[in-house]
Amino acid sequence: MGLLVQKYGGTSVATVKRIQAVAEKVARFRQQGHDMVIVVSAMSGETNRLVALAKEIQDNPDPREMDVLLSTGEQVTISLLCMALKMQGCDARSYTGGQVCILTDDAHTKARIKSIDEQRIRADIDKGRIVVVAGFQGTDSNGNITTLGRGGSDTTGVALAAALKADECQIYTDVDGVYTTDPRIVPTASRLDKVTFEEMLEMASLGSKVLQIRAVEFAGKYNVPLRVLHSFQDGPGTLITLNDEECSTMEQPIVSSIAIHCDEAKVTIKGIPDVPGVASKVLSPISDANIEIDVIVQNISADNTTDLTFTVNRSDMAKAQSVINGVSAELGAKDVLTDDSVVKVSIVGVGMRSHAGVASTMFKALAKENINIQMITTSEIKISVIIEERYAELAVRSLHSAFNLDG
Amino acid sequence: MGLLVQKYGGTSVATVKRIQAVAEKVARFRQQGHDMVIVVSAMSGETNRLVALAKEIQDNPDPREMDVLLSTGEQVTISLLCMALKMQGCDARSYTGGQVCILTDDAHTKARIKSIDEQRIRADIDKGRIVVVAGFQGTDSNGNITTLGRGGSDTTGVALAAALKADECQIYTDVDGVYTTDPRIVPTASRLDKVTFEEMLEMASLGSKVLQIRAVEFAGKYNVPLRVLHSFQDGPGTLITLNDEECSTMEQPIVSSIAIHCDEAKVTIKGIPDVPGVASKVLSPISDANIEIDVIVQNISADNTTDLTFTVNRSDMAKAQSVINGVSAELGAKDVLTDDSVVKVSIVGVGMRSHAGVASTMFKALAKENINIQMITTSEIKISVIIEERYAELAVRSLHSAFNLDG
Repeated sequence: MGLLVQKYGGTSVATVKRIQAVAEKVARFRQQGHDMVIVVSAMSGETNRLVALAKEIQDNPDPREMDVLLSTGEQVTISLLCMALKMQGCDARSYTGGQVCILTDDAHTKARIKSIDEQRIRADIDKGRIVVVAGFQGTDSNGNITTLGRGGSDTTGVALAAALKADECQIYTDVDGVYTTDPRIVPTASRLDKVTFEEMLEMASLGSKVLQIRAVEFAGKYNVPLRVLHSFQDGPGTLITLNDEECSTMEQPIVSSIAIHCDEAKVTIKGIPDVPGVASKVLSPISDANIEIDVIVQNISADNTTDLTFTVNRSDMAKAQSVINGVSAELGAKDVLTDDSVVKVSIVGVGMRSHAGVASTMFKALAKENINIQMITTSEIKISVIIEERYAELAVRSLHSAFNLDG
Repeated sequence: MGLLVQKYGGTSVATVKRIQAVAEKVARFRQQGHDMVIVVSAMSGETNRLVALAKEIQDNPDPREMDVLLSTGEQVTISLLCMALKMQGCDARSYTGGQVCILTDDAHTKARIKSIDEQRIRADIDKGRIVVVAGFQGTDSNGNITTLGRGGSDTTGVALAAALKADECQIYTDVDGVYTTDPRIVPTASRLDKVTFEEMLEMASLGSKVLQIRAVEFAGKYNVPLRVLHSFQDGPGTLITLNDEECSTMEQPIVSSIAIHCDEAKVTIKGIPDVPGVASKVLSPISDANIEIDVIVQNISADNTTDLTFTVNRSDMAKAQSVINGVSAELGAKDVLTDDSVVKVSIVGVGMRSHAGVASTMFKALAKENINIQMITTSEIKISVIIEERYAELAVRSLHSAFNLDG
């Protein structure tokens, strides 16, 4: 028994029937004696409907008004869920982000939470009520409605759990946990019982779509135990926690998962003068054009020139190429090369910090399959390689096996 | 040039196209130099959609949660209208009821406005902004979302106009003003340039659907000039004001309009003891059963017993009859009679206060058509008769002509 914050996403509350199923589930937890705070997203499809209305009026809808509009989506869900909870015999109250004082900055459509006043929620909990809070939204210091952007509801859940010092923040979704790799590629992929925040961050940014990276960061910062579970299937899910010092590294796998990021494209600018500031001269125009960069690699120079390669989402490649052609001429570079048929495959694991030879195991496994490595980047707990797209699945399967992850 | 509060109802904002048309209209007023505050309802159909969702879950949805749900309807409209105003080159800001501190009591689904803090709106006006406020909603003193019930958006408009001391509150609707009677019955019915609050109140309660009675009461109390206009046709509409003492009664018609209220049913309880408290003994159980009573008539008694007749909406008659049958037995009444094919026809006009003979003109006109009067009730500015349903249109036409209202 304790205080649980549970978050249900758009597909979990897509219809009245599903909202009723969520209410039954929540009521069961309540009957077991838990104090319950529930965060919900808009019913799936609703946000798209609202966006379409706005786009009929403005191609780039006014951000402040967009937030006023979109925040209604979650508000509909909280009221319906409370009604369904009442039908389960539970006392429940719904609140918008503003009503429970989720204070954000004023960056409309992508606001960041600054603070939460948990007193109102606490008062309801003390009266035995289930509190249902609209995810994804808050208000700025002037009382304007704000939204938190992509994955905002996960962030609301974690922030509430942190403010209330909840025993666990449970994110209900359409998968039953975090896997060692994509089960569609490797049928022997298995659910992880536990991963660390850091591993989860690397996995999230590498394309795992289970949890939003912001929520994981937030949970890590405030040490909120985070659990990913399936909305409508029972099971323990995956717990995301601090790396428990008491666990010996013996007990954890060196590599916990293999991530894959498709849809990458790489752009190389060759033979640019190797002088301070050159990387920024190449990359600033890319960021000014609102193109998100993933990997950046620059190796040592030869003949006072160097090559710089970065990857972008494939859909941004044409735009990136035209920007870089301009930059290339300015800098007197030798050439610009592009390739839009690459993928990024990564191994992730806090265990690799203290284990030599992880990289060589990885590269050996790929070599055995004759997969050429085009680029390599590393962090403390992650090694990524860029390879030809056609080898993507083969690479993931061979690495999954090489690191003994086959279940 | 002045400060105008304009209210646009659900049909006026039913589609994105109509919202854009409203924005164009508002922008024209702004260009003429007016300060503008706009109140909008939910896009028509939206409230029904939300109610249907709630009813899938609860037959009688929880009132607090119903308000959370329904208030999203207006919130969608305010944001879309602001976007459309921006496309017209206007600076505009949307606010929910709670954001502009429309404080209400806590009677969910039928809350009453207690106060409005107009400072935030005033600050925006001073910056040259058009302020768009969600009608129909507010928050109680604990910050819970409330809605104002039927016609709530009209009330929001009037309340804002009162708080801001606006020059006029303009209610845009699907008729071009208030008419001398229903033009579908009397083709010569004409638009009134001006009516008094009191006349409008009598007309509203008698079945004119142009304005909600609460809004008129509110406007009268705070002396807010109220104008009814057509959303998409130009015209002066009808101004509803205090009866200007400077206008001589010579200049105003004695009777300003003929109202008709169909769907009435009458219930008579005959031969009840004529003792103090008997009317309350008859009518309390009716009100306890949540049946709304319209007309009540009791005449002098004979033989220490009296007859009491009241009318209800036809759809409530069966329920009323069964309640009254019980009461009748208790009180030892002689009989209960009902008739569900009656209508109420009324003449309304502040002019009749100072004119004798209005009633006799009315009764003479009806007699000339051989229309039997079943019941009569009067107020200072209204005379109503209950007649057989089949004479309804004939009665209205003959009265319209008898009081020289034919345009």
